[in-house]
Amino acid sequence: MFSHIKELQFEAKPDRPDPLFAKKLQELIGGQFGEMSVAMQYLFQGWSVRGNQKYKDLLLDIGTEEIGHIEMLATMVSRLLDGAPVSAQEEAAKDPIIAAAMGGMNPQHAIVSGLGARPADSVGNPWMGSYIISSGNLLADFRSNLNAESQGRLQAVRLYEMSEDRGVKDLLSVLIARDSYHQNQWAAAIAELEEAEGFLVPSTFPREKERLDVAYTLYNFSEGEEAAAGRWAQGPSIDGHAEFNYESTPKAEGAKPVLKPAPPNLHNTLPMDNIPK
Amino acid sequence: MFSHIKELQFEAKPDRPDPLFAKKLQELIGGQFGEMSVAMQYLFQGWSVRGNQKYKDLLLDIGTEEIGHIEMLATMVSRLLDGAPVSAQEEAAKDPIIAAAMGGMNPQHAIVSGLGARPADSVGNPWMGSYIISSGNLLADFRSNLNAESQGRLQAVRLYEMSEDRGVKDLLSVLIARDSYHQNQWAAAIAELEEAEGFLVPSTFPREKERLDVAYTLYNFSEGEEAAAGRWAQGPSIDGHAEFNYESTPKAEGAKPVLKPAPPNLHNTLPMDNIPK
Amino acid sequence: MFSHIKELQFEAKPDRPDPLFAKKLQELIGGQFGEMSVAMQYLFQGWSVRGNQKYKDLLLDIGTEEIGHIEMLATMVSRLLDGAPVSAQEEAAKDPIIAAAMGGMNPQHAIVSGLGARPADSVGNPWMGSYIISSGNLLADFRSNLNAESQGRLQAVRLYEMSEDRGVKDLLSVLIARDSYHQNQWAAAIAELEEAEGFLVPSTFPREKERLDVAYTLYNFSEGEEAAAGRWAQGPSIDGHAEFNYESTPKAEGAKPVLKPAPPNLHNTLPMDNIPK
Amino acid sequence: MFSHIKELQFEAKPDRPDPLFAKKLQELIGGQFGEMSVAMQYLFQGWSVRGNQKYKDLLLDIGTEEIGHIEMLATMVSRLLDGAPVSAQEEAAKDPIIAAAMGGMNPQHAIVSGLGARPADSVGNPWMGSYIISSGNLLADFRSNLNAESQGRLQAVRLYEMSEDRGVKDLLSVLIARDSYHQNQWAAAIAELEEAEGFLVPSTFPREKERLDVAYTLYNFSEGEEAAAGRWAQGPSIDGHAEFNYESTPKAEGAKPVLKPAPPNLHNTLPMDNIPK
Amino acid sequence: MFSHIKELQFEAKPDRPDPLFAKKLQELIGGQFGEMSVAMQYLFQGWSVRGNQKYKDLLLDIGTEEIGHIEMLATMVSRLLDGAPVSAQEEAAKDPIIAAAMGGMNPQHAIVSGLGARPADSVGNPWMGSYIISSGNLLADFRSNLNAESQGRLQAVRLYEMSEDRGVKDLLSVLIARDSYHQNQWAAAIAELEEAEGFLVPSTFPREKERLDVAYTLYNFSEGEEAAAGRWAQGPSIDGHAEFNYESTPKAEGAKPVLKPAPPNLHNTLPMDNIPK
Amino acid sequence: MFSHIKELQFEAKPDRPDPLFAKKLQELIGGQFGEMSVAMQYLFQGWSVRGNQKYKDLLLDIGTEEIGHIEMLATMVSRLLDGAPVSAQEEAAKDPIIAAAMGGMNPQHAIVSGLGARPADSVGNPWMGSYIISSGNLLADFRSNLNAESQGRLQAVRLYEMSEDRGVKDLLSVLIARDSYHQNQWAAAIAELEEAEGFLVPSTFPREKERLDVAYTLYNFSEGEEAAAGRWAQGPSIDGHAEFNYESTPKAEGAKPVLKPAPPNLHNTLPMDNIPK
Repeated sequence: MFSHIKELQFEAKPDRPDPLFAKKLQELIGGQFGEMSVAMQYLFQGWSVRGNQKYKDLLLDIGTEEIGHIEMLATMVSRLLDGAPVSAQEEAAKDPIIAAAMGGMNPQHAIVSGLGARPADSVGNPWMGSYIISSGNLLADFRSNLNAESQGRLQAVRLYEMSEDRGVKDLLSVLIARDSYHQNQWAAAIAELEEAEGFLVPSTFPREKERLDVAYTLYNFSEGEEAAAGRWAQGPSIDGHAEFNYESTPKAEGAKPVLKPAPPNLHNTLPMDNIPK
Repeated sequence: MFSHIKELQFEAKPDRPDPLFAKKLQELIGGQFGEMSVAMQYLFQGWSVRGNQKYKDLLLDIGTEEIGHIEMLATMVSRLLDGAPVSAQEEAAKDPIIAAAMGGMNPQHAIVSGLGARPADSVGNPWMGSYIISSGNLLADFRSNLNAESQGRLQAVRLYEMSEDRGVKDLLSVLIARDSYHQNQWAAAIAELEEAEGFLVPSTFPREKERLDVAYTLYNFSEGEEAAAGRWAQGPSIDGHAEFNYESTPKAEGAKPVLKPAPPNLHNTLPMDNIPK
Repeated sequence: MFSHIKELQFEAKPDRPDPLFAKKLQELIGGQFGEMSVAMQYLFQGWSVRGNQKYKDLLLDIGTEEIGHIEMLATMVSRLLDGAPVSAQEEAAKDPIIAAAMGGMNPQHAIVSGLGARPADSVGNPWMGSYIISSGNLLADFRSNLNAESQGRLQAVRLYEMSEDRGVKDLLSVLIARDSYHQNQWAAAIAELEEAEGFLVPSTFPREKERLDVAYTLYNFSEGEEAAAGRWAQGPSIDGHAEFNYESTPKAEGAKPVLKPAPPNLHNTLPMDNIPK
Repeated sequence: MFSHIKELQFEAKPDRPDPLFAKKLQELIGGQFGEMSVAMQYLFQGWSVRGNQKYKDLLLDIGTEEIGHIEMLATMVSRLLDGAPVSAQEEAAKDPIIAAAMGGMNPQHAIVSGLGARPADSVGNPWMGSYIISSGNLLADFRSNLNAESQGRLQAVRLYEMSEDRGVKDLLSVLIARDSYHQNQWAAAIAELEEAEGFLVPSTFPREKERLDVAYTLYNFSEGEEAAAGRWAQGPSIDGHAEFNYESTPKAEGAKPVLKPAPPNLHNTLPMDNIPK
Repeated sequence: MFSHIKELQFEAKPDRPDPLFAKKLQELIGGQFGEMSVAMQYLFQGWSVRGNQKYKDLLLDIGTEEIGHIEMLATMVSRLLDGAPVSAQEEAAKDPIIAAAMGGMNPQHAIVSGLGARPADSVGNPWMGSYIISSGNLLADFRSNLNAESQGRLQAVRLYEMSEDRGVKDLLSVLIARDSYHQNQWAAAIAELEEAEGFLVPSTFPREKERLDVAYTLYNFSEGEEAAAGRWAQGPSIDGHAEFNYESTPKAEGAKPVLKPAPPNLHNTLPMDNIPK
Repeated sequence: MFSHIKELQFEAKPDRPDPLFAKKLQELIGGQFGEMSVAMQYLFQGWSVRGNQKYKDLLLDIGTEEIGHIEMLATMVSRLLDGAPVSAQEEAAKDPIIAAAMGGMNPQHAIVSGLGARPADSVGNPWMGSYIISSGNLLADFRSNLNAESQGRLQAVRLYEMSEDRGVKDLLSVLIARDSYHQNQWAAAIAELEEAEGFLVPSTFPREKERLDVAYTLYNFSEGEEAAAGRWAQGPSIDGHAEFNYESTPKAEGAKPVLKPAPPNLHNTLPMDNIPK
C-alpha cells in the first residue's frame, strides 16, 4: 500500500523554458534506463522476493523512491515546455532559431500531451515492460540493478553537460548523486550475496552438469590476438575454481546440420537435391 | 567482415521431437537475454569502441561466438519440431496428450515458419533492438554484459531442469558452461576497469558537481526497517570515498509543484480554482 | 514523494495454486486496461495538471491507490504459481491434466520470472506507455478514465466468473467494487466539468471555425438503415446547440485526388499515363 | 463487403507544401487516437456485435466513414510533402530556415515512403492494434468511442491552431466538425444504454458479489484534502444506489505478504533470513 | 470515400465452434501477412500513387476487397468462439480435452474481446503499421505485394490442412483462390513494369554511380561451394547487362576501423591503449 | 560457426562529420529493410532449410556478407557523429545552423549510445524480429528477399542523393551495387524454382481444393474502370492455367452475418433488438 505527499523530494524548476531540452530529458523518464524502468524493476523484484525480507524491504524502499523521481522529472518537463512555440503566429515569424526549436521539439508534447511529460523516451518510443527484469534470483537481479544505475548515471551526466540552466543542473545533480548511492548500494548487496553463495549465477546448479572443459576458455573468433593479453585469458578465474585459458583456433565439434524434410501438409519446399535443374 | 563454416561448434540434436520444448527454447534465441541479444549487444559495443583495441577485439570475439549460438539453437528448434502435430488428422484422434501438445505449441512454428525457429521469445514477442545496450562507456556496458550472462545462464539452467532429453541437455550444458566463462570474463574485465578508473560510472564526472550530501544515504521510503541492517546503510562505501548512512524519515526539500496555465491555443482545461462549482 | 507500507490494503491469497489462472490474471496487471495502465495514467495526468488543485489531488489519490492494486495482484500471481509444474520429472508422468497445465501456462512465469508476476498481459505482450493518455484537457482525460474503469471492471468480472477459488474471488470482489466506485467518481467529475464548460471537448474552440453544416449529421455509409432510427439521428443534439439529422446518400464534395510527380532524386515510379504499354 | 469511389468526401489540398506540418499531421493518421484507430475500432466492434443490429449498423456506418478520413489525410500529407528539401543540393545552400526544415522533417517521409503518408504517428511510432478496444460490451465500448472522439477533436484543434494554411484549415474544420458529431452521437447512444441497463459496466454482474462496503469510498492516499470537497466524496452516487463517502486515513486490511520459497529446480535465491551474514 | 454493404462477399460459417482454431486463424487477420496488412498496404500504396491512374485504381480495388476479407475472418472467429469454455463450472469438470482447450485458447478472446476477433496474430502480438510498405516506387512495391500474397496463401493453405471443418475449409478455399489470383495479378503488373523500365529497382539511378565491379559477383562467405553451382554465379545476369561471376575468397578492401575518442563531455571510456594495466 | 576479420570489406570513412546524416543513415542499419533485417532474414532462412543444400549455402553466404554490411554502416555512423554538437557551450552560440543540427540530430546518439550506431531506424524505432520472414517455402521466401533488396536499394539510392560527401557516396555506391547483385541473384533463384515447381506459392496444394471459379478474376471494388485495361484482367494468366477475367459489379454471395448472443458469464451486452427503447 502506497501513499503520496504533495511536496517534491527535491526542487524541479528550470530557470527558463527549453522545449528541446524537455524532449531530451524524456530519456530519463521513459527510456530503457529511465526512472519508470528502475521504479517498476525494483517494485516487481520486491513483490516477487520469496523469503529474504531484508532484500525485499530494500527493493521496496528504492522502488518507492524512484516513483518520486519520475514525479520530479515530469514536473521539470512541464515547466521546460512552458512557452513552447506551438502557434501558427510564431511560425510565421520565420526566426531561424525559433524554426529550429519548432523543428526539433517533440510534436507530441504539444499535440498529444498539452505540454505535459510523456511515458516515452527522447525519440518518442513508449516505455515498455520488456525493459525490466525480475528473475527471482537476487544476485542476477542486483547485477541488473547495478547496470541500470550505471547507465542511468551516465545518461544523467551527459544531459547535465548539455544544459546551462541552473535549475535543470540542480535537479540532475541530485539524480546523479542518488545514482552514485545506488551503484554503491547494489555493489554492497552483490558483494554480500557473492560471499554467501559464490560468484556464479545461479550458484545452486551442480557444476558437474555443465561442460567444464569449455567453461574457462576464451575462444578467438575474431582475427587479431589483442584480447589474448587480457586478464580473462590467463591466471585464476574470478570464481576461484580454475585457470582461464585461450584457444586461438576454435574447432567445430558438431556436424554440418542436415534437417529432415517437413511433413507434406506444411507445404514447405521439398528437397530437390537430386532433382535435375 | 565475417565468414561462416558449415559445422556447428557443438552438436544440436535432440533424442526426440518435442514441440512444447521448442516453444520454451525460443526464450534463449529471441528473448530479452537470448543469444540474439548478446550477439548484437557485443557486436554493437565492439563496433563503437573508440581506442581500446583490446576490448574491441574481446567484444568482437564473443559477439561472433554468439551468432554461432543462435545457429545451434535454431537447429535444435527445427529438430524439436520434427513431427509436430500439425494436421487435422491427428487432431481428430482426440488423444488428450496430443491435444495438450497442440494447444500448447506455438502456432507460428507451424503456420508462419514451417517448423523453423522464430526471432522471438517463448511467448512469441519478436526480438527488439531495445533489448540491447551500447553506451560508449565500457565499464557501464561490461556491467550490462555481466548481467546478461547471469540472466542467460539462469534461464538456460531452468530449461535444463525442464527437459529429460539427453541431446537437449548436452547442448544446454555447453551453453551453461559458456555463460559461466562469460560471467567470469566480464567480471575480470570489470575488475580491470574499476582498478584503472574507479568504481563509479562514469568516473570522469567531477564529484563536486553532484549533491554529495545525498550520495551515500539509504532513504527509508517503505515502512519497516529491515533494510537498515544491511551493509549498504553503514560502514565505508564501496567507492571508498565516504560512509554509508541511513535516513529513516526522509524529508521533502522541494515545494508543492504548481504549474502555470497552458497557452490558450492548446485548449487544455483552464484553471478553475476560483470558479464556483 | 511516495511512501510504502508493508501490509497489503486487501488480502491476496488463493486457496490453491493455479498456474493457468496466474497467466489469465496478468491481464489485470499489464494489459491495456490493467492496473499498471490506470496507475500510470492517473499519475501522469496528475503531474501535468496546470491549476485545478482539486483535480490534481484526486488524480494523485487514485493513481497512488492503483500502485497498491498492482502489488496485490503481483502477490496473488506469485502465490498462484506456487507448485507450478516446472520440472522434467512431472512432465514424465504424462498425466493429461498436468500436460494441459504445462502446455497452457505462461512459460516466462518459469523461465524468466521464477514464479513472479510479469509486467505483461495474459498473452505475454509487455505493458506499453502507449496504453495511457494524459492530454492536459481534463474533460477528455476523465472520459478516458471512465472508459478504463469500465473495461477494467468488465475484465475483472469475467475473470471472477472463470475462477472457483474463494481467495481469488475475494480479491476480485474488492477490485470490482473499486472499479464501481471509480466509474461513479469519474462520472461525477465529468458531470461537474460538462456543467462548467459544456459538453464538447475542447470547449474553448470557437464553433464557427468548424464546418457546422456537417457537425450534426449521421452519414449512412453502410447499406441498411437501422441506425437511422436511433436517438443520434433526430431530435436535439446532446450539446443542446442543434438538431441531429440523417443523410442516407452522402455525396462526395471533394475531387478525385491527382498527385504531382515526385522529384527525380527520390526515384519514385515516374508517371507513365501517356506511355504506350 | 466494401466499395470505394474515387472522389474524396471533402477536399484535401494545402495552399503550399510544408513538410514539418506533414510530420505533425501524421498524428491524426497513425497516432493513438488517429483515424486508423477509430476506423479499426468501430469496424472490429461492429463485426463483433451479437444481436443489436441497430448498433451494429451504426458502428459500420461510422467505421466506414473513418476509412475515408484516413484517405483525405493521406492525400493531404502527400501534398504537404511536395517540394520537401530532399536533395544534397539544397542542403548545400545552408539557408537556416531550410536547414531547420530538413532537420525537423520526418526522414522516413523521404527515405521510406517517397513523399507518401506513413501508418505512424507524429514521432514515427507505427500504428498498433493495441490502440483499439472491442470488448463485446457496448456501453463500455461506446465510452471508449466517446473518449477517442474527444482526444481526436482536441488534437485536430491543436493542429488547426498550429497552421495558417487555408487548405489545411479547411480540411481540419471538417474533421473537427465530424468529431463534434461523433461526440454527440456516442453520448446519445451511451444515454440510451445507461437508461436501458443502468450506469455501471457491466450491468449484469450481481452487485452482492462485490465488496459493496468499499464501492462508494474515496480513499485519501495523497496528503492534502482538496479532493474531499468534490462531488465524488459526498451525496448520492451517480448510479443512484448509495451515498459517496470519504476515508481520510485508509487502513490496510491485508497482511504483510510473505511468499513461500520457489522449488529448487528454478534456482531462485534461497531464503537466507536465518543465515548469518 | 468508402461504403459498405451488410452481406459478406462469401459465407463465413463453421460447422462447429473451435476456440483453438479461432486462435490460429488470427494469423490471417492480424499477422505480418494477414488481411489487415494487405488491406492497409494496398490502400496506402494507392493513396500515394503520383500519376499512373491505372495502378492507383488497381491498388484501391484490391485494398478495398481486402477490408472485406478481414470482415469475413472476423465473423468466422466470432463463430468459432461460440461455446468456448469460459466459466469456472466447466473447468471443474476436469475433462482433459476441455482442459487442453482451455489451456490452449487465447485468453484475450474471453477476457478482452468477449468472443470477438482481435487485431492481433495467432500468438497475440498486435498488428503493427511497420508490417506494411509503401515506397512510392511501384515496381518495388509490387514485388512486396507478390511476396505478401505468396506468404499469405502459404499460411492459408497450412490452416486449411489443420482443419476438418467444412465451413472453415470453404472460406479458406476462397481466400486461397483470391491469393492465387493476386499472385498472378501482381506478377502481371511486375512484368509490365519490368518491360517498361528494366529489371532493377530503382531503374532511374545511373548505373555508373554504383561500383559496377562488385555488382555481379557472388561472394563465398560461407565454407562450402554448393552455391557456386547456381545460375546466380555464372551466365548472363537477369538484368541482361553483364555476366555473373563467383569469388571464392573475398578480400577485404577496407582498413581496420580505428575510431577517434569521443569528446570528454560524453564521458565515454577514454582510450587506455597506452595506459599500463 | 562464424569468424571475423578486423578489416572492413569496403572502406567506411566520410569526408566530414554530419550528425543529421548519421540519423538518416540509421534507416539502412535498423530499418524495416536495413542490413539487420537482411542479415537475420537470410540466416534464419538458411538455418531452417530442410534438404536443398545449394540454397542453404547461398543463404548463409549472403546472410554472412550482410553482417559485414551492418559493421560498415555502424562504423560510418560513428564517424559521422564525430564532433556532433553535444555540449551546452555550443548551444549558447545560437548559430542557427548549429541550432538546426542540434534540433535535428537523434538525441539518443548522444545520450544513449555515446556517438555510436543504434539498432534502430531513422526515427528511432528499434529493429524488430517481426521485420523478417522465414517460412520454410523457398519460393515464397526468395520473393521476400527480392523485395527486401528492391526496397533496400531504393532507400540507399535516396540517401546517396541526399549527401554530397564523397566518403559516404563511396560506401553507398558499394551497397547499391551489392543490392543490384542481390536483386539479380534472387531473381535467378526464383526463376529456377518457378521452372521446377510452377509459379504459384505453394505449388504443392491441389488446385481443385481452392475455389477455381474465383481464382482468375479482378473484382472492381473501386469506382472507375482504369484497372480493367490491365494485363491482369484479360489474356492468359501468368501461371498458364486459365484466362484472366474482370467482374465490374461483384455480387455478395454470403448472407448478412448475425451472431449468436455470448454466454451470460462474459457480460457482453445482451441482445436488445426486441426491447422497446
